Amino acid sequence: MTIQDRPTAPSKPGAAEGFAYSRRVLFYETDLAGMVHFSNFFRYMEEAEHALWRAAGIRIDGGRTEMGWPRVSATFEYRSPLFFEDDFTVAVRVKAVTKRTIQYSFVVTRETTAIGSGTLTTACVTRKLGQPDSMRSTDVPEEIVARLRVAAGQAA
Amino acid sequence: MTIQDRPTAPSKPGAAEGFAYSRRVLFYETDLAGMVHFSNFFRYMEEAEHALWRAAGIRIDGGRTEMGWPRVSATFEYRSPLFFEDDFTVAVRVKAVTKRTIQYSFVVTRETTAIGSGTLTTACVTRKLGQPDSMRSTDVPEEIVARLRVAAGQAA
Amino acid sequence: MTIQDRPTAPSKPGAAEGFAYSRRVLFYETDLAGMVHFSNFFRYMEEAEHALWRAAGIRIDGGRTEMGWPRVSATFEYRSPLFFEDDFTVAVRVKAVTKRTIQYSFVVTRETTAIGSGTLTTACVTRKLGQPDSMRSTDVPEEIVARLRVAAGQAA
Amino acid sequence: MTIQDRPTAPSKPGAAEGFAYSRRVLFYETDLAGMVHFSNFFRYMEEAEHALWRAAGIRIDGGRTEMGWPRVSATFEYRSPLFFEDDFTVAVRVKAVTKRTIQYSFVVTRETTAIGSGTLTTACVTRKLGQPDSMRSTDVPEEIVARLRVAAGQAA
Repeated sequence: MTIQDRPTAPSKPGAAEGFAYSRRVLFYETDLAGMVHFSNFFRYMEEAEHALWRAAGIRIDGGRTEMGWPRVSATFEYRSPLFFEDDFTVAVRVKAVTKRTIQYSFVVTRETTAIGSGTLTTACVTRKLGQPDSMRSTDVPEEIVARLRVAAGQAA
Repeated sequence: MTIQDRPTAPSKPGAAEGFAYSRRVLFYETDLAGMVHFSNFFRYMEEAEHALWRAAGIRIDGGRTEMGWPRVSATFEYRSPLFFEDDFTVAVRVKAVTKRTIQYSFVVTRETTAIGSGTLTTACVTRKLGQPDSMRSTDVPEEIVARLRVAAGQAA
Repeated sequence: MTIQDRPTAPSKPGAAEGFAYSRRVLFYETDLAGMVHFSNFFRYMEEAEHALWRAAGIRIDGGRTEMGWPRVSATFEYRSPLFFEDDFTVAVRVKAVTKRTIQYSFVVTRETTAIGSGTLTTACVTRKLGQPDSMRSTDVPEEIVARLRVAAGQAA
Repeated sequence: MTIQDRPTAPSKPGAAEGFAYSRRVLFYETDLAGMVHFSNFFRYMEEAEHALWRAAGIRIDGGRTEMGWPRVSATFEYRSPLFFEDDFTVAVRVKAVTKRTIQYSFVVTRETTAIGSGTLTTACVTRKLGQPDSMRSTDVPEEIVARLRVAAGQAA
């Protein structure tokens, strides 16, 4: 874990609660049905999770550290489709923490339209560099949770 | 819907129940943690769903028909990682059917190792060609469900 | 073609010549070798091309128009790898125009490091909505070329 | 490098010269224009390259070895689009070898339709496990080239 000196980004007022990550839909994220392929919402959730980490001043695993965060489960409920070049926002919060996992919740919106919502549950592991099959579950560092909650605008 | 004349593919004996779809992990499906990126399991489930449709002798939406199957929800539980060039199997079954949705369940294995399991719930819609925002919910055709169940080795 | 009223974005001083599009490397764009998978540079070029179109106040095909821009050829030369969360810039220019094609050139950099460079050659086609196999080659509208050149900081 | 005991797979008679790799277009490989996104052809070339290596009884870098094959350049010329569920074949050959690089050529066809053709040039490097930025160029092992040429049906 590297503590960085970037300031905490406050969540955008008016948006869903939590840290707000925004971007535009890219051409190759659409499929022949003319809308964003459903699998990409799992990538959008991860992008928002990583943006939250950066806002919290900590680095998610960059493959060069021994701590990793593999997924235990992932869910998404689809409400309305996203189209090419749509601007959308993913609001992310820390939903639940156990001794060895962090669960995030996500709400995706396009302006005032609800696009969908989901969750990611990640386990904290250590592993030897370049040996992905050496993963072992370990305790979630308390400081990480505290920093994420602050960055998401939640009571720490 | 186009009825095709391909024979029903029986599920592989010894595998998880349902129709079995198998393939190998591709290089670009891995990430810097050295294993398959978690979002790709949603693509694997869709591949198995489409293979089940082909086995059932029906074509899923190819963008040239007015019937489509957007996702209502998607879930996956991760048990063990998949690595580059691993051969894996996705067993798919029709789990539940409502008037306007089909829910599939999936079990992913690598030989005898449980990799994970998930669900996809899809709505039946009609739409005008080239107008993805014209989708309207419609009833699931009974014949499609009957054919899918037979192809998955389930009592029709 | 929809003419939009967004102002032309000037290219960033000090960067490679052309319109500058910048973003950060995402986790799922890396592969098990720990760097961005080589195929993603073709997606980065397309993103820069579309950003240039937006800067020029015109919309690239959104699937709802009858004009499209399929690729005729694509090339990329790799100089140095990109890693997770690297900030990079793609500078795009109109390199050559024929009666029925536009060729763009791209230079990718991370601060002062040359990452690589490439080209995309696109044909101008018309097609019927929802019928991708109805494509026919057509003349490139002169106004589009003029606008793209201005947005890329090139003499019109 | 691990030498495996799989037999050399002969190239399919009647196809383009070289080792033939075949599969079906997946739904998420299409875009809103209704055809395979142009970037995916670079992935198809890589898949064929890796299939050639398997046919040659050698393993491409699996992230757990110190030898890697990053790309130096990649090109593709598009002739005709590929659509959802199309069956296609990629024929791959060793086109040119220098002291430190291997260049492959690829021809993509759907039955008798020419879809496109391309090249990949790869450098041979060594690196420390888990340290992607430790890459150093090294000589291409002659045995690898000989095996690849045999697997591609070329005079060794």
